[in-house]
Amino acid sequence: MAINKEASSQIKGGIFYSVGIGPGDPMLMTLKAVSTIELSDIIAVPKSGADQNIALKIAKDYISSKTIIECDMPMTRDTNLLKCCHDNAVAAISALLEQGKIVSFLTLGDPTVYSTAMYVHKGLTERGYRTEIVSGVPSFCAAAASLNTTLCEGGQPLHIIPASYKDTDSLLDLDGNKVLMKSGKSILDVRDRIKQNNLTGMMVECATMENERVYKSLDEIEAGASYFSVVLLKSNE
Amino acid sequence: MAINKEASSQIKGGIFYSVGIGPGDPMLMTLKAVSTIELSDIIAVPKSGADQNIALKIAKDYISSKTIIECDMPMTRDTNLLKCCHDNAVAAISALLEQGKIVSFLTLGDPTVYSTAMYVHKGLTERGYRTEIVSGVPSFCAAAASLNTTLCEGGQPLHIIPASYKDTDSLLDLDGNKVLMKSGKSILDVRDRIKQNNLTGMMVECATMENERVYKSLDEIEAGASYFSVVLLKSNE
Repeated sequence: MAINKEASSQIKGGIFYSVGIGPGDPMLMTLKAVSTIELSDIIAVPKSGADQNIALKIAKDYISSKTIIECDMPMTRDTNLLKCCHDNAVAAISALLEQGKIVSFLTLGDPTVYSTAMYVHKGLTERGYRTEIVSGVPSFCAAAASLNTTLCEGGQPLHIIPASYKDTDSLLDLDGNKVLMKSGKSILDVRDRIKQNNLTGMMVECATMENERVYKSLDEIEAGASYFSVVLLKSNE
Repeated sequence: MAINKEASSQIKGGIFYSVGIGPGDPMLMTLKAVSTIELSDIIAVPKSGADQNIALKIAKDYISSKTIIECDMPMTRDTNLLKCCHDNAVAAISALLEQGKIVSFLTLGDPTVYSTAMYVHKGLTERGYRTEIVSGVPSFCAAAASLNTTLCEGGQPLHIIPASYKDTDSLLDLDGNKVLMKSGKSILDVRDRIKQNNLTGMMVECATMENERVYKSLDEIEAGASYFSVVLLKSNE
């Protein structure tokens, strides 16, 4: 389904798109991500250090002279501070939507998978604005591709576990394959536990980015890894 | 990273690409899927009934006059028959790679997620041919986008469970959200079990295809659903 700017502009008020721009390689953007960015008046990006520059870098060929707004999204577990930042972003973008603007919020990977964009997305939806998600390739699919292997086959379940989950150990014993997201810093801690579980561990840092690094075995890892790390644990069947 | 046909043709022997073409909407193909298909000499598709036509339909704008080969991939649990079909596909494609051809095997969604393409991919890799995976948007990401909701947030795990898993019930109790893949036929059977677990169930049939249907509640489902169904179960926190 192509997006048509004329059709969009007939709708009262603007539209907010959470746009997944994929894992890093600009060629892994979807045609829809490109066309949505191109029809947008304003490009919003999270400002949280490295993230911001990466999103703009991936999509740079399609942004050209568009207005860019940065939304403070600090990497903190202070829930009050985060809520305040999300509320600020919702307020700023609401004002633009009231003017009928089309706003694309860029997010790495897919917006429905651990994306901060969705807090803003939800806030705008609750205020009654038109919001849409443009899917992207999640980092764990890209990591498996870089490893030239599957995430899951046949009747195998796949368990996706974020680094901030409170009880990762309890899930390592589950039947099926596991993906550990953003566990770069703690990977050395879980490595020994993984070995006890008859699992094969592999890791990709910064999948499909220029500084991608592939570890066919967790034994190759010598120190904590990048925030953008995906660990794949496969059952040895 | 752009793909360059001249560079590719300097490599001895051909290249086999497992190409994810996304969930259904041709606009959800990646730029890399499009360019890989365009540089290919031959397009391979699974022949298993509906699947074949859908893959060719999604990618039709980029295939034009290319040679298309069909690989028998019947929907059966007869492992001997399946192995025979995979071996036949590997043999047929090996012959093309020996001639230096570039072959793209089209697969719905992402090739690393429950794709039959990967049995052929693995067979060709084991025979020493150059094989690569081109990532695509998985159907469960597209389903969440159609529901305008997240798959997982913050510290929540996400459990992906295929319909053919032997003990789905044991996983419904797990902490975190769940995706049930291709469980259209059995959805009425698990619905009551789901209600007992303080979970909210939603479903999307044929996400982003022309005949997409969104169910905001499993109570809306009256009969078995399409093979291309994704059920999302979210914790009521």
